[in-house]
Amino acid sequence: MSNLGKQTDNIKQLQGEMQKKGIDWYLIPTADYHDSEYVTDYFKGREFISGFTGSNGTLLVSQNWAGLWTDGRYFIQAEQELKGTGITLYKMQEMGVPTILAYLEEKVTSGQVLAYDGLVTGVKMGLQLEERLKDKSIVIRYEEDLLSSIWTDRPAFPHQKIVVLPEEISGEKASAKIAKVRSQLIESGADYLLLTKLDDIMWLLNLRGSDIPCNPVALSYVFLSKQEIYLFVQSEAITAALTSYTVQEGICLQDYRTILSFLQQYDYGGSVALDKEHMNVTLYQTIRKRAEVLFMDNPTSLWKAQKNQTEQQNMRAVYLRDSVAVTKFIYWVKKTVPTKKITEMDAAEYLDALRKQTEGFLDLSFPTISAYLEHAAMMHYQATTETNKSLEPKGSLLVDSGGQYRGGTTDVTRTIALGPLTDAFCTHFTYVLQGMLRLQNARFLYGCTGRNLDILARSPLWNQEMDYKCGTGHGIGYMLNVHEGPQSIRWSYDKELPEIILEEGMVLSNEPGVYIEHAYGIRTENIMLCQKGHKNIDGQFMYFEPLTYVPIDREAIKSSLLSQEDRQRLDEYHAQVSKRISPYLNAEEKAWLQEVTAAI
Amino acid sequence: MSNLGKQTDNIKQLQGEMQKKGIDWYLIPTADYHDSEYVTDYFKGREFISGFTGSNGTLLVSQNWAGLWTDGRYFIQAEQELKGTGITLYKMQEMGVPTILAYLEEKVTSGQVLAYDGLVTGVKMGLQLEERLKDKSIVIRYEEDLLSSIWTDRPAFPHQKIVVLPEEISGEKASAKIAKVRSQLIESGADYLLLTKLDDIMWLLNLRGSDIPCNPVALSYVFLSKQEIYLFVQSEAITAALTSYTVQEGICLQDYRTILSFLQQYDYGGSVALDKEHMNVTLYQTIRKRAEVLFMDNPTSLWKAQKNQTEQQNMRAVYLRDSVAVTKFIYWVKKTVPTKKITEMDAAEYLDALRKQTEGFLDLSFPTISAYLEHAAMMHYQATTETNKSLEPKGSLLVDSGGQYRGGTTDVTRTIALGPLTDAFCTHFTYVLQGMLRLQNARFLYGCTGRNLDILARSPLWNQEMDYKCGTGHGIGYMLNVHEGPQSIRWSYDKELPEIILEEGMVLSNEPGVYIEHAYGIRTENIMLCQKGHKNIDGQFMYFEPLTYVPIDREAIKSSLLSQEDRQRLDEYHAQVSKRISPYLNAEEKAWLQEVTAAI
Repeated sequence: MSNLGKQTDNIKQLQGEMQKKGIDWYLIPTADYHDSEYVTDYFKGREFISGFTGSNGTLLVSQNWAGLWTDGRYFIQAEQELKGTGITLYKMQEMGVPTILAYLEEKVTSGQVLAYDGLVTGVKMGLQLEERLKDKSIVIRYEEDLLSSIWTDRPAFPHQKIVVLPEEISGEKASAKIAKVRSQLIESGADYLLLTKLDDIMWLLNLRGSDIPCNPVALSYVFLSKQEIYLFVQSEAITAALTSYTVQEGICLQDYRTILSFLQQYDYGGSVALDKEHMNVTLYQTIRKRAEVLFMDNPTSLWKAQKNQTEQQNMRAVYLRDSVAVTKFIYWVKKTVPTKKITEMDAAEYLDALRKQTEGFLDLSFPTISAYLEHAAMMHYQATTETNKSLEPKGSLLVDSGGQYRGGTTDVTRTIALGPLTDAFCTHFTYVLQGMLRLQNARFLYGCTGRNLDILARSPLWNQEMDYKCGTGHGIGYMLNVHEGPQSIRWSYDKELPEIILEEGMVLSNEPGVYIEHAYGIRTENIMLCQKGHKNIDGQFMYFEPLTYVPIDREAIKSSLLSQEDRQRLDEYHAQVSKRISPYLNAEEKAWLQEVTAAI
Repeated sequence: MSNLGKQTDNIKQLQGEMQKKGIDWYLIPTADYHDSEYVTDYFKGREFISGFTGSNGTLLVSQNWAGLWTDGRYFIQAEQELKGTGITLYKMQEMGVPTILAYLEEKVTSGQVLAYDGLVTGVKMGLQLEERLKDKSIVIRYEEDLLSSIWTDRPAFPHQKIVVLPEEISGEKASAKIAKVRSQLIESGADYLLLTKLDDIMWLLNLRGSDIPCNPVALSYVFLSKQEIYLFVQSEAITAALTSYTVQEGICLQDYRTILSFLQQYDYGGSVALDKEHMNVTLYQTIRKRAEVLFMDNPTSLWKAQKNQTEQQNMRAVYLRDSVAVTKFIYWVKKTVPTKKITEMDAAEYLDALRKQTEGFLDLSFPTISAYLEHAAMMHYQATTETNKSLEPKGSLLVDSGGQYRGGTTDVTRTIALGPLTDAFCTHFTYVLQGMLRLQNARFLYGCTGRNLDILARSPLWNQEMDYKCGTGHGIGYMLNVHEGPQSIRWSYDKELPEIILEEGMVLSNEPGVYIEHAYGIRTENIMLCQKGHKNIDGQFMYFEPLTYVPIDREAIKSSLLSQEDRQRLDEYHAQVSKRISPYLNAEEKAWLQEVTAAI
């Protein structure tokens, strides 16, 4: 109750600020200055005003009304959290629900003022607002930060120390990367590049930070010309090592807070390349007024995705250690549940503790998903003290987890039988397994994109007229974001969305699933490294090298559904799991692993 | 020798005409007025001048030089046919070979004149020439037909009688089709449509002709406004039935030869929609000077591809009869070869004769491919009296053939064992079979395009690091072209090329293969009809209904390579073949079919 009162107060205060400044509509998206997928608490202004805690949502406020737009993952949660606040919930992509642009188009009237803070609003949204409302005779102000004055207990701005990666970790000097980016920049006719995407900056300069939980990035900008490179970081984040590194590499250090004045005062001698998908409105407008803007994908993105030999070698080692932790966890949870009362959260904590003890561990790569029974039907379930279920020796536990290590970022899902399972469950588990194995064992010609391969994972389910409503795989960073572009494995066609050819060194998840609402969820996820196979008269063949080596629960497999080829693939995979993981287990665990990885 | 003399004379005469008219470069592509894939002899001007008989090639002539560009299918043939003519061969897409545009860009000099006959040159080529040579200060003339005056024995212009399809064949009145096209036209903001693609015109007005061998089309144009529809055909092609039909349907008949003056005199009240892929330069320029041009895909194309219920029902019946003919042929060829001396051409003639005896037969849908042993490694092999091989009781014969029937167009390929086969052959035959069956049995969500599915047919080969260098499937017309767009099944990605979602009623070939140069070729081709399956919470599922029912040679299958699922698919298919085809066979054939379609 007191909480609701707080939200209502916050909205009222915001409306007061709007009135003072003559603003009719105020928009609060969910973003930091870098349009990051995950943001630190400092940037959770939409949550502060509305009380809605989901990771995606846009709040729109007028003098006598407020509305919140969010996606399907959060409908139930948003309904609960918005109760009593007076904020109307708009369920994105539901039939008959207007988009925020359509809503504004209908409601704004001539002479009104729409405002937002352009530093935390993406260019794409900014341009859409301009385009969609251009005939409405309204004023759009993009430099209005109304939160600062009313958010008195705003969390501190993060500024953790920045770490420089040595070459045995990065595998390639920053200078070499900068040279590649520069030559691509020149090739595309641009003279400057403003880089705001944090993981791209970290990759380019072989740096890492810890300003965003689970994402080892430092808040920063890079401005690259044909001769100079400027790195903007917070002075609090600078160490002596960083200073000497930047001097040595010819990187000019600048204060993070001065980016705007730098861009205002810079003497542009040509055009500036910007990535529309990862740029805020204020920076864009600042440059646009002073130089020609060339929108293009960040030239860093495709290189970052192709892990070099050092990165590949380090990832193999890291995935092995991570697989050991997950295998030990599976052993523990299966042995513990029948004898001891534990919960979803206990299981997650146990696994997190195993990872923390693992060599090179830095952080989780995302909060561990530990979802029992019907909870697993929600793809992004997070156990809370309210929902936390006790695990019993029946049904299944889905655990999706990963770590940030010195030498790689991991991600793995296993669905674990805790006791008796239904026939339907085992049937679905087997289809998911078939799909995962078929994709992992794919051979394909160079030139394929994820859309060519998706059906390998999906067809065992499609043959039963079933589907999972998400992509099959995403890219994964190297000591960076667990979701990394630009490559992916998905089936749906969008002619506006260019597809990315799968290149040697790209890392991808392979995670088909079955989600039966109110009943159960199944997902089996391995991470794979794309490699070159033979080249012959038919072309360059490609294949996937598995990085993940964790047993797949044979208790849940309906072996009569497996083809001879499926069996062979499973047995070969399990033989590798046994061979690679056993040396790191104790005698009991080893005996168990032997058993659960035996040929089916 | 006399032939070579003729070509050289023709080139000299052409150069004489060029000199008279002050033309430095003359371009002769291979096209008719409609940019058709296949053309009648009247339009084989490039062949007349150069002597090269392939179906694709562009000739460029200057005062002291001539060059011919053609693609990989014709390199060997073109080398032979051009010998002694002095014409230089340019092998398209070979390393270091300039395109015709690059060649011209390098060679033309300021003040020169480049000319071609815009009536037989596509708009795309015309626009590329303009764009590529715009800085060269040359003159491009597009209304220069230099062939008419020198081609004294030019074949006659075809003008076969036009046939009107009754509704039990077309399944939909022309008026209903016209209404659909008109509403789409208006939706896309155009006021007029000039339709020059012959099969689209035939489809729209429920007409058929026979001006191009194997392609039941009449040379014609359609000009559609919001109120009127004009059909341009040759007066010789008009029958009393056509006249009364057009009067009744409100179609205004015009003389084919008056299209240019019609377009010159028409009083345009808006913009004209044109399909860049199927329009000649002269018509385009004529309109462009008088009205705004909107380039768009022909609105007829996507509807034509989705066969209506009547068309589907007729195709089922036609494919059954056609499958009977091919089955009888396989029986005959397997029995005959060991006892009698026959050749590739004899086999083709026998099959053609069987088709001709079949109810509703009108024409072949393309010249029958009958390719023995290594000849089958050439995808488009055509036996000639020079190459015609004797068939012996060893190795395999590839037969790719089809017919035009009242009620459908067919296309089918079988590779037939004539005697002992190598182990490698049988292994490859089995991979091809697996791919064909896996694609034919695909279940997939609505929204998939051919690129999602291609890997189902290809992966048995890709897994062995082998490939076939062509698409897996093409669309097929209804009593129309055997190659029909816009849908296809292929894997390669081209972001400029929009993909087509597979819709209910689309007909597609499914023809994986193995081609081993100098050794053998394998192709197994069924035709499939795309259908809607169940719709559930996961979406609308789709599947393929096979139209072709011809036995697949079990003597060539290495059954140890088949999975249980493959066997089941093969056995089910063969059971259907036996059930459907047997009633039309004699006792001997029936006994044989029983045997060759038994479960494996």
